[in-house]
Amino acid sequence: MHFKDLESYLLKRQALNSALTLFSWDQETEAPKKAVDQSSRFVGVLSNEYFQTVTDPKVKAILLDLEKQDLSLNEKAIVKEWLKELRKLEKIPVNEYQKHEELLMKAHHVWLEAKAKQDYQMFKPYLEKIVQQQKKFASYRIENEACLYDVLLDDYEPGFDTKRLDEFFALLKQEIVPLLKKVQESNKVIDKSFIFQDYDLTLQREFNHWLAGYIGFDFDCGVIKESEHPFTTNFHNKDVRLTTHFYKDNLESAIFSTIHEVGHALYELNIADDITLTPIGTGVSMGMHESQSRFYENIIGRSSNFWKPIYSKLQETFPKQLQSISFEQFVEAINRAEASLIRTEADELTYALHVMVRYELEKKMFSEDIDFDQLPELWNHYYKEYLGVDVKNDSVGVLQDSHWAGGLFGYFPSYALGSAIASQLYAYMKKTMDIDEMILRGDFKTLKDYLREHLHQFGCIYPTLTLIEKFTGETFDPHYYVDYLKSKFTRLYDL
Amino acid sequence: MHFKDLESYLLKRQALNSALTLFSWDQETEAPKKAVDQSSRFVGVLSNEYFQTVTDPKVKAILLDLEKQDLSLNEKAIVKEWLKELRKLEKIPVNEYQKHEELLMKAHHVWLEAKAKQDYQMFKPYLEKIVQQQKKFASYRIENEACLYDVLLDDYEPGFDTKRLDEFFALLKQEIVPLLKKVQESNKVIDKSFIFQDYDLTLQREFNHWLAGYIGFDFDCGVIKESEHPFTTNFHNKDVRLTTHFYKDNLESAIFSTIHEVGHALYELNIADDITLTPIGTGVSMGMHESQSRFYENIIGRSSNFWKPIYSKLQETFPKQLQSISFEQFVEAINRAEASLIRTEADELTYALHVMVRYELEKKMFSEDIDFDQLPELWNHYYKEYLGVDVKNDSVGVLQDSHWAGGLFGYFPSYALGSAIASQLYAYMKKTMDIDEMILRGDFKTLKDYLREHLHQFGCIYPTLTLIEKFTGETFDPHYYVDYLKSKFTRLYDL
Repeated sequence: MHFKDLESYLLKRQALNSALTLFSWDQETEAPKKAVDQSSRFVGVLSNEYFQTVTDPKVKAILLDLEKQDLSLNEKAIVKEWLKELRKLEKIPVNEYQKHEELLMKAHHVWLEAKAKQDYQMFKPYLEKIVQQQKKFASYRIENEACLYDVLLDDYEPGFDTKRLDEFFALLKQEIVPLLKKVQESNKVIDKSFIFQDYDLTLQREFNHWLAGYIGFDFDCGVIKESEHPFTTNFHNKDVRLTTHFYKDNLESAIFSTIHEVGHALYELNIADDITLTPIGTGVSMGMHESQSRFYENIIGRSSNFWKPIYSKLQETFPKQLQSISFEQFVEAINRAEASLIRTEADELTYALHVMVRYELEKKMFSEDIDFDQLPELWNHYYKEYLGVDVKNDSVGVLQDSHWAGGLFGYFPSYALGSAIASQLYAYMKKTMDIDEMILRGDFKTLKDYLREHLHQFGCIYPTLTLIEKFTGETFDPHYYVDYLKSKFTRLYDL
Repeated sequence: MHFKDLESYLLKRQALNSALTLFSWDQETEAPKKAVDQSSRFVGVLSNEYFQTVTDPKVKAILLDLEKQDLSLNEKAIVKEWLKELRKLEKIPVNEYQKHEELLMKAHHVWLEAKAKQDYQMFKPYLEKIVQQQKKFASYRIENEACLYDVLLDDYEPGFDTKRLDEFFALLKQEIVPLLKKVQESNKVIDKSFIFQDYDLTLQREFNHWLAGYIGFDFDCGVIKESEHPFTTNFHNKDVRLTTHFYKDNLESAIFSTIHEVGHALYELNIADDITLTPIGTGVSMGMHESQSRFYENIIGRSSNFWKPIYSKLQETFPKQLQSISFEQFVEAINRAEASLIRTEADELTYALHVMVRYELEKKMFSEDIDFDQLPELWNHYYKEYLGVDVKNDSVGVLQDSHWAGGLFGYFPSYALGSAIASQLYAYMKKTMDIDEMILRGDFKTLKDYLREHLHQFGCIYPTLTLIEKFTGETFDPHYYVDYLKSKFTRLYDL
């Protein structure tokens, strides 16, 4: 058999996948609210077609034959990626999978209500059932010496198993928890009340669209819309779409959402042409994707050099609110660290600590016979230990995220890994180019070209860990992250 | 076999159809411009999947078995509709069809260039080839005593063959052409220069969205966006979307586009729940659809009673431009009749005459061995005869519409039939309810409910001619249209 035999299947798989992506994008950004019941039946049919295509026995025969052949780098990666998905899907009995999907759909609604009512007990039986079933799924797929949780972690972040993550989070616990304590005890007060004044939405929209273009988003290959929770989605390297969210009483929320999502978008826009319509034509992992979004959002977007040439534009857009705010005041405000209860509102310093709480609890859920009644207490205990805050109720505690109701276990660690990878890439880039001066000049073209050449273009050809090594010449090392945070926040808070 | 055996195929057909509709809606309203090459490959794959599903031998076996059974009204209509499409597709060799699609794609670009350059000769060889191939397709499908053009007409307007259309257009020629002459010779001058002043786009958007809601568009089941050419598209009866187009120097263009498209949308929104996810869950024909859009746009939307309660709102929206324009001046202006060269800009009186030109030419192309070099001359000759205008060049003449480049022959007559059907329905409704008073009260709910009960809900269950009879108790009769136009324009121009 020849690789050519796979081509019509490759295109069919991408077409069905894109149709599903388009329905989802449409649902999040535009579809009328009463459409969902009927339209979700179409999504069900198309998902099933996608499943049939990926697991088609004719495709499997071709893939197994190709696996033994001497293929090009791209072809090899495509065959590997498809077989990985196929083997995963094959191991899950279809009826169990469908039943679980129904459970998740129901659980999502129960979670919404439980969160609104601050009633963990209402959600608990669903959470238990979901974890039970996910354990079962993981047990079908377990190989070698992995634990159940490793199977789930591998879905989002291949290469980062519990062993590696334990080391990673141990380092954060040892270094960042005490750093946050010092920040909290510092005498320096950073005022950011001006951020929460009244900011006209139309002007915010204009500024954010301009900002997206400024840092390299190409509107000929993408769309920016609005949705409750900002996200980025991609069809191929000529069509990548993102959303942001504007609040009348918060200037920074939209700005950093926009920069964050543009970071994701640039990764997808710069995938190589010859793989964009294949299963490897997308970012390699959640963590690598977050490394790009957080690199743009935090390392670049919150830096003094970034705002030096453009703060005056922001001031001109909102003269009443910002004329008395100096450039230095503004940059300090957008970097203020403060322990809070809600992960999605966390700042750069505390974000990973929120993730650490979830990691500890997920590990327990999947390795021990945990008593689910104890979960809120455990949650609150870790929040006190890592962030020093008291959880007032379960809505702002164990019920705050939608992930568990959606069966997304093993997903959270990637959020923290993203920041760590970003810091390591940044440290290397500083050695090879004057990146800070480039940012000061607003030269995002050179930066984009560099990231394309050394990272973005490869899609899923190389695994995350390999890609980090190819980029930096070193293995993954979270010390860069710790050093970055220590240096930045020691300076900011005069520690 | 049971009707139940068809159900999974029905849903798959709708799902693929909806995915194609969504890609098309996205392409027209939002997709970034560089996406088209890659995304059109997905559309190609999904179109092929749709074709395979409709012509699936397993489905055919079920349909042929069901065709002989005693089914419910809905089931019978579904089987009939599917078999009709299947038999049509079966008769066209796939490779000829694909080659023709490629020709059309190329022809569209050539037509665009030819139109820009006023160069008919450039487009002529493509037009000839398209007509030749369409004749061939029609010859594969011809039955009984139909002529080739009848086969094409049947695709858009079953029941209206050349015999019936010849009578229809003969009546228009006899009655409307002289009526227009009288209008042109009348001494009454209607000034509408105020329509073409500078109208703020944001305010136009606000007014038109309000107007759509006022006449019954439900934003919980639909979306309004903008596109170059306004259109309506539907997924099911809980998701119907339309576009409109705003011009800074034209107040009426957007208003009547909006009302027209809402007319289409109301038809689709009021299809019965039990057929909305089936092939009969949509408007029965182009002409019946146009009857609804033109009923709302012209018969209602240009009436004095329609504007009486809301003209002040329009004046308040644009005080500078409208404060000195009386209600009577406004209503006269939006009803002014004037022969022009461009169909899409034509008023209510002259519109059908534009269509008549195209009908005459299409008939010639499909029944005679016409010399395509003569086509522009023929076009110009008919424009002079019917509308009394001289065609300055082929861009505003024979090259003005995209339809022929797209292979849409037999499509135009529906535009004129729509107005005729609307007039007949209106004449009947006036006998059963005080519709003019309802409009004056702004009671569009009662009107919508009436149209739902007597027309919209049925989708494709009854053919157009049957539906007209069920609604009015009479067969289709274009005299209502002629009477409506004569009465309206005799009054308006004091003839």
